[in-house]
Amino acid sequence: MHKPAITQVTINETIANRWSGRAYDADLTVSHDQIIALLEAARWAPSCFGDQPWRFIVWNKNTDAESWQLAFDCLAASNQTWVKNAPVLLLVCADSLFNHNQQENRWAQYDTGAAAQNVCLQAGSMGLMAHQMGGFNAESARAAFAIPAQFTPMAMLSIGYAADIATLEGEVLAREIAARARRTLNELFFSDKWGKAVD
Amino acid sequence: MHKPAITQVTINETIANRWSGRAYDADLTVSHDQIIALLEAARWAPSCFGDQPWRFIVWNKNTDAESWQLAFDCLAASNQTWVKNAPVLLLVCADSLFNHNQQENRWAQYDTGAAAQNVCLQAGSMGLMAHQMGGFNAESARAAFAIPAQFTPMAMLSIGYAADIATLEGEVLAREIAARARRTLNELFFSDKWGKAVD
Repeated sequence: MHKPAITQVTINETIANRWSGRAYDADLTVSHDQIIALLEAARWAPSCFGDQPWRFIVWNKNTDAESWQLAFDCLAASNQTWVKNAPVLLLVCADSLFNHNQQENRWAQYDTGAAAQNVCLQAGSMGLMAHQMGGFNAESARAAFAIPAQFTPMAMLSIGYAADIATLEGEVLAREIAARARRTLNELFFSDKWGKAVD
Repeated sequence: MHKPAITQVTINETIANRWSGRAYDADLTVSHDQIIALLEAARWAPSCFGDQPWRFIVWNKNTDAESWQLAFDCLAASNQTWVKNAPVLLLVCADSLFNHNQQENRWAQYDTGAAAQNVCLQAGSMGLMAHQMGGFNAESARAAFAIPAQFTPMAMLSIGYAADIATLEGEVLAREIAARARRTLNELFFSDKWGKAVD
């Protein structure tokens, strides 16, 4: 399913076409090289002091189904209904401390969000679909995978090839075919001062 | 100057070529449509509950030099030395509260980082260069632009056309020509469990 962003002017195709769909093809696998490409995209995101505060754990159902299942079990039930067919799961964590001085990094989550966005765009660029989820149990994930205290689990991602939306049903299908929506430009972006319309 | 990411496998060209340079062309302006394209790219980033917690203020030296100067004055002196030629500045803020229930949004900064990354990539896609900075006085910016308390100033961006690096000098020039570096894949990304090499 193709649901490009509706924009006033043309934007980068990969950015416009990125979309968090829910229909995954259970039969198509993601290769090791594709996973490396996703991670290289994240690796080269910018960060404050070049700290690179992001840490990911990746699970590939086709190489370690048991670990993939442990990760899947951390997801909210509402996400599990459609994530079940995604071959790759990814957990995004943010290092709360700067590497160079072990002081709080107030940009850790912000920079980590940029790295994860690169994953989503790289996925789209390779014909894959990535979907970020806040709906997972962060403390279950921390316990299951022994994530050190200084790292904050931020999001889980499902990654795989999109399937026909006919593979979905009920509320999930309804959400899949709903039109994409965003606030207006002038609600989000200001010119010269806070609140002044940009457009 | 072209400093593409050094990657093990080929990645999306826009992601690979994004780079936070410092040499801006003082003579080339950024059009209104280009600014709208940067904002549309941000607008269509994903966010938890579709909250879209990002808010930007944009300053264009060519349409309101006085406001641009107020924003410029919030930057750290070390950034001002090279930002001075950038025609567009942008302040990125994160809404700390969910719109739907006014409760804390723990993904606000993470999602806002994704939106800002889209700006950087859209810039590169249009032949512009964007450079994110943590080096600015957030409280000065809040005071100068009356930013409400629930919004956290996260970063300022300079945007414009790149100039020849010969326009730089001293330490700024040295940083501009230094090789780009990142941690290894295995330092940042794990497979199946925390700490297990991905590659």
